[in-house]
This record gives sequence, structure tokens and C-alpha cells, in this order.
Amino acid sequence: MLNTDIWLTEYYEDAIGHTFKIKRNLYHAVSKFQTIDIVETDYYGCMLLLDGMVMTTENDEFIYHELITHIPLLSHHAAKKVLIIGDGDGGVAREILKYPHITEITVCEIDKMVIDACKKYLPVTASGFDSSRVNVQVKDGTEYIAQFKKHFDIIIIASADPVGPGEGLFKMEFYQNVFAALTDNGIMVNQSASPWSMQDQFKNINKSLTNIFPIVKPYISVVPTYPGSFWSWTFCSKNIEPLSNINKPLAKKISESCKFYNPEIHKAVFALPNFIKDLLTG
Amino acid sequence: MLNTDIWLTEYYEDAIGHTFKIKRNLYHAVSKFQTIDIVETDYYGCMLLLDGMVMTTENDEFIYHELITHIPLLSHHAAKKVLIIGDGDGGVAREILKYPHITEITVCEIDKMVIDACKKYLPVTASGFDSSRVNVQVKDGTEYIAQFKKHFDIIIIASADPVGPGEGLFKMEFYQNVFAALTDNGIMVNQSASPWSMQDQFKNINKSLTNIFPIVKPYISVVPTYPGSFWSWTFCSKNIEPLSNINKPLAKKISESCKFYNPEIHKAVFALPNFIKDLLTG
Repeated sequence: MLNTDIWLTEYYEDAIGHTFKIKRNLYHAVSKFQTIDIVETDYYGCMLLLDGMVMTTENDEFIYHELITHIPLLSHHAAKKVLIIGDGDGGVAREILKYPHITEITVCEIDKMVIDACKKYLPVTASGFDSSRVNVQVKDGTEYIAQFKKHFDIIIIASADPVGPGEGLFKMEFYQNVFAALTDNGIMVNQSASPWSMQDQFKNINKSLTNIFPIVKPYISVVPTYPGSFWSWTFCSKNIEPLSNINKPLAKKISESCKFYNPEIHKAVFALPNFIKDLLTG
Repeated sequence: MLNTDIWLTEYYEDAIGHTFKIKRNLYHAVSKFQTIDIVETDYYGCMLLLDGMVMTTENDEFIYHELITHIPLLSHHAAKKVLIIGDGDGGVAREILKYPHITEITVCEIDKMVIDACKKYLPVTASGFDSSRVNVQVKDGTEYIAQFKKHFDIIIIASADPVGPGEGLFKMEFYQNVFAALTDNGIMVNQSASPWSMQDQFKNINKSLTNIFPIVKPYISVVPTYPGSFWSWTFCSKNIEPLSNINKPLAKKISESCKFYNPEIHKAVFALPNFIKDLLTG
């Protein structure tokens, strides 16, 4: 073994890939829904893969989790009830726990084996699961959401890609149920694919959302371990604008505990390059 | 050969890498300064590599070239003379040609073989070299700059990484000569490494520049084919601020010919995540 390197490569469209040197394979399982792997990489620490796709790593998870959480939370001045769909690694719950005024935090994740593996191997990300303030529902998010009417102030969809168990989280019927489950000032944010390497998905997600929500604003940043690295999330609401409604004193305070988010970033992520604007209007 | 794939992988720190499926190897040469390769990739079109490092690709070059050019050009209302050091692919010259009021455009590139290879295999990027407005000097930028005093309004350093022939373009003596070659309202922008995967370089470059220029403002975006994908450039000037001095009517006009740049992007790229702010103050 002394002359052996182990490298894991996530290929995309059989044309590009990110490759990572591996120290150890820590965990492999096949759940009812997907394959689950956790490997320890040299560069990014422990990494979670579902069906062979990189979901999160210890060293860059803060970007995704801070941006999907603090943009909606700091755009709503009176939120009390938050639902997270997906988030098997617990990173969104961890970020929401920074807000003492949120009284109801529900994580709805379909695959308990993902939660258990993340608790064991990604304990910093999964620390949100340790709190008694977090209510975990091991259920299919598309079914769970359907029982609520005007209940949640904020819904965050931290889904995997629209293949496998996450597929239903990108359908019109699901988005309609999310809209119905939100209060009149409600906000929904979802991860909305790469505007670089998944342009059709990015376009289709935004088009679907525009048919349902009065306000739809995609925002972008970088997740270095995702295909193409450019990534997007989409802010949707019934009436709240993400930029004119920032809770500035709280945003400043929250950013003190963040590695990525700050009030300038809150605005900057909504500035879209021309090629992305063209995708949305084309 | 029917069962053979060719993949090119650029490794970084023997721990991560970007891998690209290759259609054809188009060009390989060893110049006096470096190895030069041009390959045709499936995903990014033709790609230039110097000493095995990805320098530019047909499909993402617009990000780097637009950001290194239009940020300084649109922050200076009266520029006439521009020097570009590096830019063997011609992409910066192409962008500067969009400004009819720039009367002097000089490209100083050390390696004529790079220019010739790019003219042949990356003709869209290298189209700047076709214009009689562009004066090409095949010289060492560190020596060339030393003869000028208060001559250039804008100097753009489109260097490779600080190893090999580009090394001198990251030294204090060079930066001092750049400062001396700039007019009293002069602006210099350089590529300043990845604030993600090359944090020591990013810190050191910015620290050096702060010792010389009164105004030093790094800005960031994504170059998907570079290691870590996060990339930075640094805006330095004797007295012009990059955000309070934007030539708005011209910025709007220029952005019509851009795939990335627009006036909102001009501001957004200067918003730095907390971990990058910490690098600059730590």
C-alpha cells in the first residue's frame, strides 16, 4: 500500500470532474433511498457523498449553510417557525440555532441513515441535531409539507440534486404546497443548481418558482467542491424583498459568528453576471 | 483507441485537482521560458496551459478578462494610456479595444511563442492582437516597466502564478516600478491568486501592495477552471476609489458587450466574505 494513492473523482457530464486525495474511507452504506459514503479527504476534511455525488465537506460547508440560512432569516423581521427540508447533515439547523427568537425549528429529512452518519463523522456540521430546540422528522418532505396551511414563516429546501430521492423537491406540486404552508409574509429559499454547469436546471427551477411566488430572486456564490463551483439559491416570497428588508442590527450581530456571511455579502450575492441574467430572461 | 479516454488533470498541492476530458492535443512546445500546451477539451473548448497549469479556456476566459479590465477602466474617467503586462492570450487587449478613447494600448508579454500559439488556437481571445491600436512588446515586464515615469494611466498585470517566468511580477521592486510608471491618478490591477486555495500568496500580495499604494482593494469572483475556483484581483491606486468613481453611463454601455461585467457586478465583487477579510487583517 505504500506506493498507493487513493483519489476520488466526481465526474460531471463525462467531461469534467473534481478530484480529491483520500486519506481513508470512513463509511459506506446503502439505505432504502441511496448509497451513502463518507470519506476523509486531505484537503477538505470529511466529505459526504450521496449516490456518489459530493454533498458537503467539513471545510467548505460554511458557505452553503450560511448563505441558504442567513439570507432568508435576516430578510424576515418576525419569523418564529422554520421548516428545513433535506439538511441531513444538520448544517442549516446549526445556523438557525443562532436566532433565539425562532421558537419552532423542524428538520424533515427522508433518510435517517444520513443523519446518523453525519452525527458520527461530521459532528461540527451536525451539531444542530444535539439541540432540544430542533424537531427532527424522518419523513418524505413532499408528503410532510402537504399537511400545513399558513404555518411556517420560513421554509428552506436544502435538497440534493433533482435525481434520486430529491427529485420530488423540484416539482410544481411541491412548490405549490410550500407556498400554501407559508404564512402571508412567508419566505422560501431552495438550492437551485449551478448557473454554470446546470443551466437548464437553473432556468427551469426559476421558471417554475416564478409561476408560484410573486417575488423570485436567485442569488449566487461559490461552492468549490460542487461541479462548476458557481452555485445558486433562490429566494422566493409572498411580499418580502430580500434587499430592502434586511434586519441590519441583527445581520451585523449574526455575521460575527459567520465565516462567510456579512451584510455586504447579503447584497452582493444578488448581483448576477450578464450570462446568468440572460438565462433567466431567455 | 476506441476504448481510450484522454483526461487532463491539474493537481493542486497533491491533494485536489480539476480534471478535463480531452478531444485532442493541439500544440506542445518548450519555449525559452516554459512549456506551452494547448488542448481541446470537451467542456471548456480550447485550453492554454503553461508549465502544466491551466491559464485560460475558451469558455470561461470572459470572467477573468472582463473583471481584470473593466473594473479599472470604468473607475478612471480620463485614462488614455494603458499597459498590460502578461496577457499572452490577448484577452485583456480585446476588452480594452472596447474603449475608443484609449489612445495607447501596450501589451508586454515575455514569450512570443505564447502569443503565436494563442493567435492560432484561441483566436477569439487573441483577437486583440489583430488591431493596429495594440502595440506588442515581447519583453520582460520587470525590465520594460523600469523605463517609464508617470506615463501610464492604467497598468494591468495579467500574470501567471508566482512561479516560473511570472515570479518577478510579484516582487516589491516591480510594484515600486509600477507605482513610478503610473500618472498621479493612476490605477494598477493585478491577479492576486486564490483567496481559497492560495491564501498565503493572496495575503502576501495584498500586504506588499499596501506598502506601496494608498488605496488597495482586492475583489473576488469565480474562475471555474482555476484551483479552488475562487479567484482574486487587486485594485490599487494613488487616489481613485473603485466604487465611488464608477463611470456609470459608460459602464452601462460597456456591459452590453459583456458576458459577465455589469455595474452591479462592479460593486458586488468588492464584497468580501469574512474569511477573506480575516486573511487581510490577520
